[in-house]
Amino acid sequence: MEQEALYQLSRSLQKWILESAAYTRAQIKQPLTVNIKSGPNDLVTNVDCANQTFLAEKIKTAYPNAQLVGEEGAGEVPDDWQQGLTFFIDPIDGTMNFVKQRANFAIMVGVYEDGQPLFGIIYDVMADQLFWGGTQLGVFENETALKDAIDNPLQEGLICVNTQMMVTNELHLQDILRQSSGVRIYGSAGITFAHLVKGQVLAYISKLAPWDIAAGRVLAETLGFQVLQFNGQPVSMMQKEGMIIAPKQAIHEIITIMNDLNP
Amino acid sequence: MEQEALYQLSRSLQKWILESAAYTRAQIKQPLTVNIKSGPNDLVTNVDCANQTFLAEKIKTAYPNAQLVGEEGAGEVPDDWQQGLTFFIDPIDGTMNFVKQRANFAIMVGVYEDGQPLFGIIYDVMADQLFWGGTQLGVFENETALKDAIDNPLQEGLICVNTQMMVTNELHLQDILRQSSGVRIYGSAGITFAHLVKGQVLAYISKLAPWDIAAGRVLAETLGFQVLQFNGQPVSMMQKEGMIIAPKQAIHEIITIMNDLNP
Repeated sequence: MEQEALYQLSRSLQKWILESAAYTRAQIKQPLTVNIKSGPNDLVTNVDCANQTFLAEKIKTAYPNAQLVGEEGAGEVPDDWQQGLTFFIDPIDGTMNFVKQRANFAIMVGVYEDGQPLFGIIYDVMADQLFWGGTQLGVFENETALKDAIDNPLQEGLICVNTQMMVTNELHLQDILRQSSGVRIYGSAGITFAHLVKGQVLAYISKLAPWDIAAGRVLAETLGFQVLQFNGQPVSMMQKEGMIIAPKQAIHEIITIMNDLNP
Repeated sequence: MEQEALYQLSRSLQKWILESAAYTRAQIKQPLTVNIKSGPNDLVTNVDCANQTFLAEKIKTAYPNAQLVGEEGAGEVPDDWQQGLTFFIDPIDGTMNFVKQRANFAIMVGVYEDGQPLFGIIYDVMADQLFWGGTQLGVFENETALKDAIDNPLQEGLICVNTQMMVTNELHLQDILRQSSGVRIYGSAGITFAHLVKGQVLAYISKLAPWDIAAGRVLAETLGFQVLQFNGQPVSMMQKEGMIIAPKQAIHEIITIMNDLNP
């Protein structure tokens, strides 16, 4: 994408997300309509759906040829998503936090061009922190440029994890955690990515859907984090899959332990 | 304590903690001196020690007959702590977060009179959120009165836990978590109590030292939470001990599962 067009895309997405957030904040003191999806801890509310519709309409109007993938509706990733522009929308990431805490949730959009990360935006609505950028732009928290990831070893960093993987010790996860500075669980991929790009967390190990990862992957890779499957392969962005987000040294340590590759 | 004296204590502690926090914020961009205590993930910094000294001096000057218990120095709880006024000081709660995140830590003081909760104050320094109060005052977030805990069942709430207890499934903790809305781990007792008193988390299950619990216990009990050992007995405040903080219905469910009391 030409630079001027990219600037335009960045400005537009920031504007639409801030409009979505204003609506979300207005709704937050009202009773929510909460529905269950795959199980009692997988929720969707009327606000998720309204934000999805609003963002999808804005994007469709401005980018009529683009493909859209969203958590609420149009959730199937098309086989040809790597052709042209694709927008991945998460209208409320961390819906349980939204429902129970009325905080610590995010609105996220990740944009890919011919399958390559182009632009990512994560808005921590209640903290009013906007994380945005891409390889051609750099990464910003509001108007402040963020620094590249520090390539610390596992023992120097906090790790965010998937609760279920930790409880079942999947892929020796408990060994990995014991070698780190400790565990944090925030209940939202977007809020976890916010901690990662600010340098507050070293690594994130979880099973994430394409809309959970799309925006954060753009920001994290731009800052020098790697985003890999548990076997060290690139992520597919086609389905929910296990992945690690960490700088080079720590991701190597994590994959070594996960796959029993210690000599 | 007479009401006017209690107001004075409240004003003084707020002032001293805000002064401590201003010093902490000024230090946060400087290199820290970090020392290891019981193990690599149990840290103390120069700021912990400076805050402890500052707060202890202010309290000693204003309340010369009071007893002091602090995380950094004077850590032994005296046998006669239930006589007269006792101040429990945690100069930086969540030191790992302070070191790694430069956020998500708290300064806390809990005051007991003849062993009874009198006043508690927790300051989330970087979020500028001050939680304070007691049975005679109510509980406030900055200047806003907080509401009593909602007596929700376990399945309606998020649970904060001790990582080690969760990993080892101590006292059937994983069963408890499966019956809840999910797990959050924030890495600081003070930050966890902030979520509890705002109604964002239903229960907190951990092993906590007297300075970890002293301030939060005052605020939580004032709002209708119970604070009990795993066997349902009152906490001793004499040593690090396992405890549950939750409203009546959830704490009953948790203790029932922990102690295999299901019929």
